[in-house]
Amino acid sequence: MEKMTTNKKRLLIVGGVAGGASCAARSRRLSETAEIIIFERGQFVSFANCGLPYYVGDVITDEQKLVVANADLFKQRFNIDVRLENEVLEIDREKAVITVKNRKTGEIYPENYDALVLAPGAASIRPPLPGIDLPGIFAVRTIPDSRRIREWISTREVKRAVVVGGGFIGLEMTENLVHRGISVTLLQNQTQVMAPLDPEMATPIHDLLVSHGVTLGLGDGVVGFEANADGSINVITQSGATHATDLVILAIGVRPETTLAKAAGLEIGERGGIRVNAQMQTSDEKIWAVGDVVEVQDFVTKEWTFIPLAGPANRQGRIAAEAIFGRNTQFRGVQGTSVCGIFGLTIATTGANEKTLKRLGWNYDKVYLHPGHHVGYYPNAKPINMKLLFSPGDGRVLGAQAVGEAGVEKRIDVIAMAIQLGATVYDLEEAELCYAPQFGAAKDPVNIAGMIAAKDLREDAPLVHWEDLPKLDGMLLDVREAYEFAAGHVETAVNIPLSELRQRMVELPTDQDIWVYCQVGQRGYYATRALRLNNFRAANLSGGFKTYQAGKFKLNQYLV
Amino acid sequence: MEKMTTNKKRLLIVGGVAGGASCAARSRRLSETAEIIIFERGQFVSFANCGLPYYVGDVITDEQKLVVANADLFKQRFNIDVRLENEVLEIDREKAVITVKNRKTGEIYPENYDALVLAPGAASIRPPLPGIDLPGIFAVRTIPDSRRIREWISTREVKRAVVVGGGFIGLEMTENLVHRGISVTLLQNQTQVMAPLDPEMATPIHDLLVSHGVTLGLGDGVVGFEANADGSINVITQSGATHATDLVILAIGVRPETTLAKAAGLEIGERGGIRVNAQMQTSDEKIWAVGDVVEVQDFVTKEWTFIPLAGPANRQGRIAAEAIFGRNTQFRGVQGTSVCGIFGLTIATTGANEKTLKRLGWNYDKVYLHPGHHVGYYPNAKPINMKLLFSPGDGRVLGAQAVGEAGVEKRIDVIAMAIQLGATVYDLEEAELCYAPQFGAAKDPVNIAGMIAAKDLREDAPLVHWEDLPKLDGMLLDVREAYEFAAGHVETAVNIPLSELRQRMVELPTDQDIWVYCQVGQRGYYATRALRLNNFRAANLSGGFKTYQAGKFKLNQYLV
Ligand SMILES: Cc1cc2nc3c(=O)[nH]c(=O)nc-3n(C[C@H](O)[C@H](O)[C@H](O)COP(=O)(O)OP(=O)(O)OC[C@H]3O[C@@H](n4cnc5c(N)ncnc54)[C@H](O)[C@@H]3O)c2cc1C
Ligand SMILES: Cc1cc2nc3c(=O)[nH]c(=O)nc-3n(C[C@H](O)[C@H](O)[C@H](O)COP(=O)(O)OP(=O)(O)OC[C@H]3O[C@@H](n4cnc5c(N)ncnc54)[C@H](O)[C@@H]3O)c2cc1C
Ligand SMILES: CC(C)(COP(=O)(O)OP(=O)(O)OC[C@H]1O[C@@H](n2cnc3c(N)ncnc32)[C@H](O)[C@@H]1OP(=O)(O)O)[C@@H](O)C(=O)NCCC(=O)NCCS
Ligand SMILES: CC(C)(COP(=O)(O)OP(=O)(O)OC[C@H]1O[C@@H](n2cnc3c(N)ncnc32)[C@H](O)[C@@H]1OP(=O)(O)O)[C@@H](O)C(=O)NCCC(=O)NCCS
Repeated sequence: MEKMTTNKKRLLIVGGVAGGASCAARSRRLSETAEIIIFERGQFVSFANCGLPYYVGDVITDEQKLVVANADLFKQRFNIDVRLENEVLEIDREKAVITVKNRKTGEIYPENYDALVLAPGAASIRPPLPGIDLPGIFAVRTIPDSRRIREWISTREVKRAVVVGGGFIGLEMTENLVHRGISVTLLQNQTQVMAPLDPEMATPIHDLLVSHGVTLGLGDGVVGFEANADGSINVITQSGATHATDLVILAIGVRPETTLAKAAGLEIGERGGIRVNAQMQTSDEKIWAVGDVVEVQDFVTKEWTFIPLAGPANRQGRIAAEAIFGRNTQFRGVQGTSVCGIFGLTIATTGANEKTLKRLGWNYDKVYLHPGHHVGYYPNAKPINMKLLFSPGDGRVLGAQAVGEAGVEKRIDVIAMAIQLGATVYDLEEAELCYAPQFGAAKDPVNIAGMIAAKDLREDAPLVHWEDLPKLDGMLLDVREAYEFAAGHVETAVNIPLSELRQRMVELPTDQDIWVYCQVGQRGYYATRALRLNNFRAANLSGGFKTYQAGKFKLNQYLV
Repeated sequence: MEKMTTNKKRLLIVGGVAGGASCAARSRRLSETAEIIIFERGQFVSFANCGLPYYVGDVITDEQKLVVANADLFKQRFNIDVRLENEVLEIDREKAVITVKNRKTGEIYPENYDALVLAPGAASIRPPLPGIDLPGIFAVRTIPDSRRIREWISTREVKRAVVVGGGFIGLEMTENLVHRGISVTLLQNQTQVMAPLDPEMATPIHDLLVSHGVTLGLGDGVVGFEANADGSINVITQSGATHATDLVILAIGVRPETTLAKAAGLEIGERGGIRVNAQMQTSDEKIWAVGDVVEVQDFVTKEWTFIPLAGPANRQGRIAAEAIFGRNTQFRGVQGTSVCGIFGLTIATTGANEKTLKRLGWNYDKVYLHPGHHVGYYPNAKPINMKLLFSPGDGRVLGAQAVGEAGVEKRIDVIAMAIQLGATVYDLEEAELCYAPQFGAAKDPVNIAGMIAAKDLREDAPLVHWEDLPKLDGMLLDVREAYEFAAGHVETAVNIPLSELRQRMVELPTDQDIWVYCQVGQRGYYATRALRLNNFRAANLSGGFKTYQAGKFKLNQYLV
């Protein structure tokens, strides 16, 4: 039995979705007596933002499904007062009072607080381009947003759409519009989609989009919009191209909704989000902030960063509640674990990517691999393109990326858990994971990733990478079968199939570096070992010809 | 570049499948000069035992697919001499010589070794019951075994089969026979199938089997077999029942194939397997043993145990090779991570189960939960029945079990990784896992499992369990809606829906324990918190009515 909680705190929460609603619900479980009020400027509390693209795509058909909890339920279940269409306009920190506007009545009223939680989320970026306010240009952030898009699609009988932005929301919208029979052009000013991936990992997604009929324009930013006489819109890009379309979806990212916080003089961090401590407390000790509005510390790199995802928002809401009610829970930072499904392909990442590690000047190494999601002898094994980043000193796992049709997010989740616990590649090597023919392999892809990295660190089989090939001063050896070589190889390579290697080692130079490759890296590894044990200076091209192709040939494929 | 390995070791390996073949292949990568010979008494090396049930079921149709590597490939790729149909008969430890019989020629010959690896696997248990040798009674261990079963099915036009044994091989065979249109009776002398699960977790599998037309006889051991005049077989059980059938599959477990080891006087452990050290070395310093033939230490309980699975066999083969070639790699023990698919249901486990912890007298606690495999608002969410076992002192995760249609082995793999790294339930609570609507939830089932356990440990919401209900001296409160209560409830329960609880608290006793339940545990938890904060002595029934039903009503359902 617990001590009676006599805490009559007045807790006000700005924003009632992932972070705010979680914080409110958790607060009630920590205090029955606190007065808890959620102010939500929109018409819905606790809705599933993440489901919006699928609602547009008619995968989720019942709008009600998107409302995880409504104001009545909050009252009945949690004794929480939810004020919909009530916008918080201002914070008076000295008086500990907020000013609220009831958007239904126009009334403006004050509310005082003992604790205030800011969970206003982020706003879709909407650059001030010519024509940006034309009808037919939409962002996807709320239920009304998606309702409007649905209506536009049906009333205008939309046939063509331009999606601007190739992040996960842009991709999900692309899939869902295609699903509705709309022909989609995806424009992305960067040279790849899905920024959390390194570029060479994104190339299969580009191919996939195109194979589903999407017109892909990479490296081409939008500079403006024009209305046509027939009601359609011309989307004009940097390269001078014009895309005539019936619908534009803007999905070029979000920025923290810091208007209130800035006006109140709360500390804002270098990345533009509210700066909080490990208890999610802002620079004002009565004010907490959670979710998309805050900057967070990257668990791996310790950098301040901005990770607008629902898992962290929920967790932060919970932690702020605990801090407010006197517990000392600490937020451990974010790993940026994320997943996105597109046309049957799953893309998942956790931890740091190579771009970040390069930018920070960290010492890192990496492996590429392409294992099947389950054993090859069982029907329908699908390859997973994986990349693992690790620290060369102690082997600590720094990050992982995976793209494939099945079993992808499972491997990333396992590695996410490993990173959280400070694991090394040696731990991955030894992991004991589920194996039956339909589910994996006696050596799971996670094990194989760890093994390849560990062999690199132990110098059993040092790795070289596709982008280093121009630096090779020595021999490039292709150990695939002759027919594979004939079908395509690195220009400068010499072919000796693995099965003939031992007999033909006399043909190889002992005084030069020999870089070995095969299709995905495994035979290359076998050859590397045989060569090294026979005194050759061999190294293995990680990920083999497959990774080489993704990097070398495909990186610039859909650039405008 | 490495030093030339001048090690001309002679390495002999008995058994050429998971453990033996892995050890041989890894050995070659550690030494180019060692002479490596595999002796395999069967006709195949390196085959996929795990695929055999699916070959019988015609899911895998090409027998060649089961042969992961053949003798030619071993020669070409690894320079390893594979001697098929060569059985090792004896080990002379003093002389370091084995005696081999070539089963094709009948020749018997000696081979001397510097290092010997025993990887003879396990043998299917075949108790000396009356009629056990009748034609039509098969075990499933080798390719010829499954070939014979396939032939028997087609030549005899088998309509009925009896599978004896409800472990994973028995279940996989059941599914595959049903897949071929055969009507199957599954007999199991224990009161549940899938021994790695605790009984209450196995009940959905029993229902599923029956819903797929399987006749299930639990708690009924087979005592003998009789031939009928028409060539069919009567399977006779303890209970006196007779099952007439065209085919019998014996899948009642395996025992370590220790004949050679025993005759050679190697140390055998308490569980009947060869006893090895962390480098997989037997009591003879020139002899190593790996795979199904050895006893292993349980990573969680530190007990000696017997885990005949392919992952550990592969890993052990690799470690023995490293030990033989002078590396000090240590086997870290087994967690017993395993998975089995049956009629679309996935069953996965890792770590210790409750049966084991009880037997060992460990202090443990547990949670049950039934989260969706992804968010409910996205179509086709499937519940996962989960159980998590943990240490009440420090919260260390001890084991987990999960049963469901999707996303099951993912959660177990994540928890397996967590257990390996010594994680606590607080780590699970904080895990940052993949979330998009198709893949999970902002609070993943792994998080929820950790959260429920953590709340129990923090005494925020102590848990009680279905089997403790008879001990309750107080009030049992059902907080579901009235219509749910009406559809079925625990007999002694009083119904106050969660939404009315705060108003009706006056009806509740302050001087008694109040055990709360709902359908799966979440509303029960909300109610428990509200009650405890209002001074009531409340606890939450873990897993709610759903777990209660699985335990109370279904445990004895298919007992003969
Ligand atoms: C289309 C889409 C798909 C997504 N898919 C995924 C996914 O698959 N996985 C994932 O992890 N994340 C996904 N996200 C991101 C995720 O939804 C956000 O990270 C999360 O909702 C952030 O929670 P939050 O509480 O910080 O902000 P929000 O959920 O955005 O809630 C903020 C709320 O505050 C209200 N508000 C703002 N200012 C005020 C004010 N002054 N007064 C009153 N109310 C105010 C807003 O109206 C808004 O409702 C997706 C987001 C979108 C838009
Ligand atoms: C039907 C079936 C399904 C399975 N499914 C799975 C699964 O889904 N997941 C999983 O993890 N595990 C599964 N297993 C278990 C897995 O196959 C074993 O754990 C693994 O093969 C053990 O490897 P091993 O090398 O110890 O023995 P084995 O693979 O059995 O190899 C031992 C070999 O040694 C040979 N041999 C024995 N004695 C001698 C001798 N004196 N001389 C010469 N040769 C000898 C035998 O002929 C045999 O080929 C399954 C097993 C079976 C039978
Ligand atoms: C609806 C909402 C307010 C509910 O808040 P909540 O009660 O904190 O959240 P959840 O439903 O996730 O449940 C989590 C709580 O229930 C507990 N719980 C869940 N299942 C349980 C079970 N079977 N038994 C016991 N407790 C359980 C958890 O431990 C946790 O409680 P705690 O935080 O006190 O430890 C909030 O989740 C929300 O607004 N969600 C929608 C918005 C959103 O997240 N959008 C972005 C993603 S699309
Ligand atoms: C066929 C067989 C002999 C191959 O042995 P193997 O070469 O050790 O095994 P794998 O194919 O699993 O590959 C693992 C090796 O290749 C390496 N490897 C795998 N993919 C790689 C890649 N893409 N790049 C570099 N190295 C790679 C691994 O690191 C490992 O090498 P290491 O042990 O020296 O670190 C063995 O796996 C076997 O017999 N399997 C079938 C029997 C069986 O397991 N049955 C039971 C389950 S059904």
